Amino acid sequence: MSIEKLNILRNDMKVVTNQILNLINQRMIIAKDIGAIKTKLNIEIIDDNVEQDIKNYLLQNSNHLDLNSEFSGRIVNLLINESIRIQNLERIKSNKEHEAALGDVDMKNLKIDNIKDTDQHKKEKHKIKTHLDVFNAAKNLESDGKNIIHLEVGEPDLLPPEEVNDGLRRIYESGRFHYTQSAGIKELRDGLSKYIYELSNRRGNNPMDLVNPNNIIVTPGGRFAIFCVFSALLKPGDEIIVIEPAWPACYDCACYLGVKTRIVKTEIEGNWEPDISEIEKYLNINTKIICLNYPNNPTGKILSKKTLESIIDLAIRKNIFILSDEVYCNYSYMKFHSITSFPYDKSILIGSFSKTFAMTGFRVGFAYATDKNLIDKITQIQALSLTSVAEPMQYCAIQALRSDPESYTRTMRKRIEIACSILEDMPLTFTYPDGAMYIFAKIDRSLNLNDLKLVEKLLENGVAVAPGSGFGNSYSDFIRISACINEEKLLEGLGIMEKLFREL
Amino acid sequence: MSIEKLNILRNDMKVVTNQILNLINQRMIIAKDIGAIKTKLNIEIIDDNVEQDIKNYLLQNSNHLDLNSEFSGRIVNLLINESIRIQNLERIKSNKEHEAALGDVDMKNLKIDNIKDTDQHKKEKHKIKTHLDVFNAAKNLESDGKNIIHLEVGEPDLLPPEEVNDGLRRIYESGRFHYTQSAGIKELRDGLSKYIYELSNRRGNNPMDLVNPNNIIVTPGGRFAIFCVFSALLKPGDEIIVIEPAWPACYDCACYLGVKTRIVKTEIEGNWEPDISEIEKYLNINTKIICLNYPNNPTGKILSKKTLESIIDLAIRKNIFILSDEVYCNYSYMKFHSITSFPYDKSILIGSFSKTFAMTGFRVGFAYATDKNLIDKITQIQALSLTSVAEPMQYCAIQALRSDPESYTRTMRKRIEIACSILEDMPLTFTYPDGAMYIFAKIDRSLNLNDLKLVEKLLENGVAVAPGSGFGNSYSDFIRISACINEEKLLEGLGIMEKLFREL
Repeated sequence: MSIEKLNILRNDMKVVTNQILNLINQRMIIAKDIGAIKTKLNIEIIDDNVEQDIKNYLLQNSNHLDLNSEFSGRIVNLLINESIRIQNLERIKSNKEHEAALGDVDMKNLKIDNIKDTDQHKKEKHKIKTHLDVFNAAKNLESDGKNIIHLEVGEPDLLPPEEVNDGLRRIYESGRFHYTQSAGIKELRDGLSKYIYELSNRRGNNPMDLVNPNNIIVTPGGRFAIFCVFSALLKPGDEIIVIEPAWPACYDCACYLGVKTRIVKTEIEGNWEPDISEIEKYLNINTKIICLNYPNNPTGKILSKKTLESIIDLAIRKNIFILSDEVYCNYSYMKFHSITSFPYDKSILIGSFSKTFAMTGFRVGFAYATDKNLIDKITQIQALSLTSVAEPMQYCAIQALRSDPESYTRTMRKRIEIACSILEDMPLTFTYPDGAMYIFAKIDRSLNLNDLKLVEKLLENGVAVAPGSGFGNSYSDFIRISACINEEKLLEGLGIMEKLFREL
Repeated sequence: MSIEKLNILRNDMKVVTNQILNLINQRMIIAKDIGAIKTKLNIEIIDDNVEQDIKNYLLQNSNHLDLNSEFSGRIVNLLINESIRIQNLERIKSNKEHEAALGDVDMKNLKIDNIKDTDQHKKEKHKIKTHLDVFNAAKNLESDGKNIIHLEVGEPDLLPPEEVNDGLRRIYESGRFHYTQSAGIKELRDGLSKYIYELSNRRGNNPMDLVNPNNIIVTPGGRFAIFCVFSALLKPGDEIIVIEPAWPACYDCACYLGVKTRIVKTEIEGNWEPDISEIEKYLNINTKIICLNYPNNPTGKILSKKTLESIIDLAIRKNIFILSDEVYCNYSYMKFHSITSFPYDKSILIGSFSKTFAMTGFRVGFAYATDKNLIDKITQIQALSLTSVAEPMQYCAIQALRSDPESYTRTMRKRIEIACSILEDMPLTFTYPDGAMYIFAKIDRSLNLNDLKLVEKLLENGVAVAPGSGFGNSYSDFIRISACINEEKLLEGLGIMEKLFREL
């Protein structure tokens, strides 16, 4: 009898699912009609407010249902994404002249694997947009025999500590080239736990609890730590907060995961201070992480203890994670407060050997969180995606921890001081960096040049700098000057800039 | 007027979406009822055939609709997954004694971030299941002072080529520790293009076209290459085909991405030959990749040219990618045909330095595909997630390519021969491996022991082997014996096994 009942239910299920597909079809027809009107009226396909409105309405209306609301949210999200995809396709097909306007929308709101549909479109638009594009263009010029001074890169020219060299020479004999624990060699995590603890206390912060090495995971660079944290905490349809101008990694990883980034803009006029009420305004049921990056790339800003406390207060009230990317912490020219020096069990520290020990190419970074469950999840994701970080590189990181990176701080600080003193006399406005390795300077309006044009002109004259728009849409009147090369070249590069500005 | 129309349509959309959610709710209620009956009748929650049947019916019925059928298929899969999740939860809640039987289902059908729901359940069940669990248990025994012979690991005990040692010693002075191109150093990709070409032709395969280094991406291990290929090609609700027994990486990555794995089982009685018609049976609109792994881990099987051709024919007819994980290709004891020696523009080669050059811990692997778009997409994903592979490790890989890994082949072959000749006299059945570094042996029924029990007994006696169930649910009467340790230890381990079997 039960088997009969089972078959009846299975049939019911087919019928209902069939109805669902029919309704989805209806929805897509409506989406197409909406798309046609939008094209006619020249309205952007994506409207965050309308989306939010639909989502709220639906989630409220399904409150009485027995559905898991995260699941409902995801289904709604998929339906919205498919509508957007259809509307984009229709627009591309029917209205060639709208292509340019659509490009950014495609890139920004579709997952990477959706880009396929607009690949052709993308290629047409390819040009210099980020510091990486500049780097590549510079490399091309160099291979044509031109001499380029690299003020665009974020990679210190300094040598890693001598201890690392010794380490490299011992790897083979010591047999340090095997799979390791996915979270990283215990010895390295032990070293990091001391390092995090001491760094935090040395700087005169709140005394923090001892750092448990089991709450640390070693990753191939800070970037992968961010990628894993996002993968562990976010599902498509979730949201994060990013304070701009910003290194674009958080944004990019969020896009990849189908996660929405809400951008809080800061301004040079406000000394790059984030407006807490604006952050609060953007928080909703789907917001899972507030991303911080101080000392900031590109502005060099360091948040005051008070501002950090307000952000943490907000996160506590709303039960949201804080991801604090502190890879530039060794380059702090004023008091820096690590997220670890505040007691909040939903804070995540991202660190790296790349900048601190001039070890970019070794690809060793880490995440630390007091939430052990989160670290375990991240470890699972790292294990399934790449097993573990290369043991020789972890071994080198252990050696690096034996050295004192303070000489790097001094070197970079001196370079920043030199660069600032020279840049002051150019038609550029900037705040003196509190930390990091960059100066983020606003181009004087009188020059009538946006970042890309200035970058191009500078490149023609032999200096590569990074365009501001690579750090957020609102910063196309900024350039980022990096102090990652030696004084002599830095001075030469700045000299070329001076000369160009005089001639403009 | 159009704006009014827009608002009307937007409202229609809300109403329709609301109806969709209501129907989905109905569907979930039916799913619960079905789950209750299944529990009562002690029927497995997952029935691939019923699923397939429902899907075919629905897709046929929605043929007349305007929906993108891939999208419909994905929605249906998501609905099915949610039903399974709900049925699992209900069963766990209502029927504690069924827990043991349910464990695998939970782990296998939920995305990592869904595991949360059954965490508690999972913890209660935690025990040895894969070779990694055995490895950890063995390590624990060792730290208690016990002597363990490791026949469970997949990591050769051999030294990397001497050239790699020279490389390691030159890294610091040559400044080979910077960010590299995301796809990998050109010099390494050039070397790999020759390596792939020569390896393919040396083995007397079809002459293949020259390999374009721009169609190669260097990744941190073969595993990350698979992860990126999946991320580039698959969306939640898509499907892949995996032939079992199999190294669980493909399955795990698919789960992480919310992708369904259709498992084609092979049997020792059929000499581990896959049934092409069974593969075909599982293909549907959402099937994107057929995953191959030959020489196979764990069976050592190598597919004949004819079988490979049939699979490729099928893939061509259905327009499906073939991902061929050939990381064991250096350990081929009969003629091995690489996927690269067949002209198919949707084939993807996964390779690695880990096994070929005994360089597991260096984490260098690669993907090669004639589809340049795919390589570009993978490169984008690698760039956003981890920038690039550590340059020192890439540099070591360049050095490794200067060496000839054939001595490793000879060593491993000899070990396999020794192991087989001794295992033949034990109550185990196995096919003689065509390649790789393992023997996958069936436990004689007369012993009345499943894999986990035998593994436990062996471990108590000082030998670690891997349980068959780690390579697929159907292989709980198998163990995998690895030949990754030196002859002396191998003989000692096999001796202990012999003794135990005599005593049983």
